[in-house]
Amino acid sequence: MFTGARRLVAAVRCTEWATGGKVSARRFGSQRQLVMVEPSPTAGVAVLKLKNPPVNSLSLEFLTELNINLEKLENDKTFRGIIITSDCPRIFSAGLDLKELCGKNPAHYTEYYKALQNLWLRLYLSNLVLISAINGSCIAAGCLISLACDYRILADNPKYVIGMNETRLGLVAPFWFKDNLVNTIGHRASERALQLGLLFPPAEALQVGIVDKVVPEDQVQSTALSVMAQWLAVQDHARHLTKNMMRKSTADLLVKQRDADIQNFISFLSRDSIQKSLQMYLAKLTQNKG
Amino acid sequence: MFTGARRLVAAVRCTEWATGGKVSARRFGSQRQLVMVEPSPTAGVAVLKLKNPPVNSLSLEFLTELNINLEKLENDKTFRGIIITSDCPRIFSAGLDLKELCGKNPAHYTEYYKALQNLWLRLYLSNLVLISAINGSCIAAGCLISLACDYRILADNPKYVIGMNETRLGLVAPFWFKDNLVNTIGHRASERALQLGLLFPPAEALQVGIVDKVVPEDQVQSTALSVMAQWLAVQDHARHLTKNMMRKSTADLLVKQRDADIQNFISFLSRDSIQKSLQMYLAKLTQNKG
Amino acid sequence: MFTGARRLVAAVRCTEWATGGKVSARRFGSQRQLVMVEPSPTAGVAVLKLKNPPVNSLSLEFLTELNINLEKLENDKTFRGIIITSDCPRIFSAGLDLKELCGKNPAHYTEYYKALQNLWLRLYLSNLVLISAINGSCIAAGCLISLACDYRILADNPKYVIGMNETRLGLVAPFWFKDNLVNTIGHRASERALQLGLLFPPAEALQVGIVDKVVPEDQVQSTALSVMAQWLAVQDHARHLTKNMMRKSTADLLVKQRDADIQNFISFLSRDSIQKSLQMYLAKLTQNKG
Repeated sequence: MFTGARRLVAAVRCTEWATGGKVSARRFGSQRQLVMVEPSPTAGVAVLKLKNPPVNSLSLEFLTELNINLEKLENDKTFRGIIITSDCPRIFSAGLDLKELCGKNPAHYTEYYKALQNLWLRLYLSNLVLISAINGSCIAAGCLISLACDYRILADNPKYVIGMNETRLGLVAPFWFKDNLVNTIGHRASERALQLGLLFPPAEALQVGIVDKVVPEDQVQSTALSVMAQWLAVQDHARHLTKNMMRKSTADLLVKQRDADIQNFISFLSRDSIQKSLQMYLAKLTQNKG
Repeated sequence: MFTGARRLVAAVRCTEWATGGKVSARRFGSQRQLVMVEPSPTAGVAVLKLKNPPVNSLSLEFLTELNINLEKLENDKTFRGIIITSDCPRIFSAGLDLKELCGKNPAHYTEYYKALQNLWLRLYLSNLVLISAINGSCIAAGCLISLACDYRILADNPKYVIGMNETRLGLVAPFWFKDNLVNTIGHRASERALQLGLLFPPAEALQVGIVDKVVPEDQVQSTALSVMAQWLAVQDHARHLTKNMMRKSTADLLVKQRDADIQNFISFLSRDSIQKSLQMYLAKLTQNKG
Repeated sequence: MFTGARRLVAAVRCTEWATGGKVSARRFGSQRQLVMVEPSPTAGVAVLKLKNPPVNSLSLEFLTELNINLEKLENDKTFRGIIITSDCPRIFSAGLDLKELCGKNPAHYTEYYKALQNLWLRLYLSNLVLISAINGSCIAAGCLISLACDYRILADNPKYVIGMNETRLGLVAPFWFKDNLVNTIGHRASERALQLGLLFPPAEALQVGIVDKVVPEDQVQSTALSVMAQWLAVQDHARHLTKNMMRKSTADLLVKQRDADIQNFISFLSRDSIQKSLQMYLAKLTQNKG
């Protein structure tokens, strides 16, 4: 499917593109190619594929690569929009990689959490049109990625769920996860969804408004492209000034207290009870795989 | 129905409970037993029954007893949730007791209004899961009690209505009533509901979102129990940190200006026009009963 | 249709009214009579008709006359409500008059924009009940006028659309347009509507909540009157204190930074790219007419 794909040194702005009948894929970042960036059939639109099997857990490496790729796309004037989708079957992203949160030191937690803050700020305030083509379950921080986009399309498969289930693991979503959710589905629905750690199947997801559209699984990508065309019909400048007007005050709540937010996260995570609970959860996950 | 019920000295933590086939009820507070606290079939859950006939008007004595009982339950580690319901037929609560607002002195109004502020803050920020089993009309400050809960179930009886009708009596709901309503049904619906003093019958109440569920009258309690079970499936610690994250900023708006809010209430209430209007309204109520 | 209409000196409080079977119309303001104020069949209610053909563009003269008429009505104790409607066929208002925004000097832009700020603050905080009887398309700042009212009724004609399409012209709606829209349809729907510059036909307008009711075209006025009767059933004093409680904090966001908002508008408008884009748009409009 992808020819001519190769590793690109981060500092080099790549120029290879789809030409003629051939599709050429670019990969920024590591050898492991956790993030694939491909041109879409629509000019100016990149498809960013999450590829950290089996469940697109947000490891530090994956977060870092996401941030690098998004920054590149943001600064590359040939792009006006990104479709974010998954290259792993049945899952968009399972959220944070719990292995990064267990038995590590505060310096590691700080680096990890900063990368997560950066990712959200970058997505939420992006000048590009971001559309999530959600072709699998989309959970916790995975859901956050899609909420930070401009539009969400979910595959109509009753096995796929979307939501923020932090409380189910004994965790508390950061306040900016909450702010992004409240801006999307309102205060009351967020209160219930976050406290209960609800994961919504497609019909309920559409009803509560956590996604904008539910389509048959084989139409997710084509729908993303046609929705993108609608958004690209608007002049970029007016559109992203408007987007910034809508979102800046919410993003500023985090920007103004990033350090306190980090400290809060680390002190919560460092509790014995939380570490134990995460270790038990990880052991169970490993067992289920075995 | 209740055996072994007796007055409990406030300082004594009571230990009597349902045992075997017998149901035992605890009553904190006054001889008049305005508030009944009973264990529910679900472990860790209390049923708090409002019993100030005929319409559960929130007299000072009733507010005080509610506050005492809620504080006890909050501090009693055996409890994780409360179902609030009415012991009076056809009415959950008619709201403030207008007799407390007429012809009294400022010191009385202050004490009364403080008790109301305390009640809301206690309910709205409770670490317990609070579910309203609304088995009758639920009006003004009665509606506030249910809005401060985590979930609202209304009996499907077209004679029951729920809402904040303060303007119908020439009154203005305090700003924190408004904030709690906006957090529940959104800004636009609140604007219309509060200005018009709308009271919603069940179908409309569900549609506007002022209640979460409407069920046949004889299923209100059982539904409350099964919804409670869903909420109790979440770890308390993560759930109430999340609840606090959702609600603290709204509660703080009152906490930061309690005294100004009291002064505002008293000066409004002390106007001749308001006193006259309340007296006329009370006279009409008395006449209707006669 | 209107007899006895005549120009009234602004300083003179007029007293002529509907008497007996005859309908008498008052016109404040200029000779051109851009704004017609007529008594409605309901006592205490005025019908304000926008009459700046062909599309009720908000010229400086029209804005000024609107402000003068609204101030008069606000201060005239015989009025409790206003129904705002259009005297131009098929259009409620097309929004700002682009001719006021092209090729003029900063002093002119300042005067014009101040008049627009004044109009919104006056409408949004009016103590009167304001109902929009939207008998035609209602676009951009025209939509703002209706959003600032207490209730919106749209004629059920699929050719009529309502919304804020600023981005379609390369413009950005002022933040208080956005705040008013968010208070009406919520954050998520506003984000999408404003970025895409969506114009909603009646069914979609009702669904998204940008209007409260859609009725057959010949019932718009009668529905406005019956809705008005519902709002007038509430005591004015309690109602407008409640309205103020709902809206003051949003209005204050503008009041506190009027000058910065004006500077921001002028500097945006003065850009060459914006001037060019407006001129091209105006040329196209003129061409279409020709």
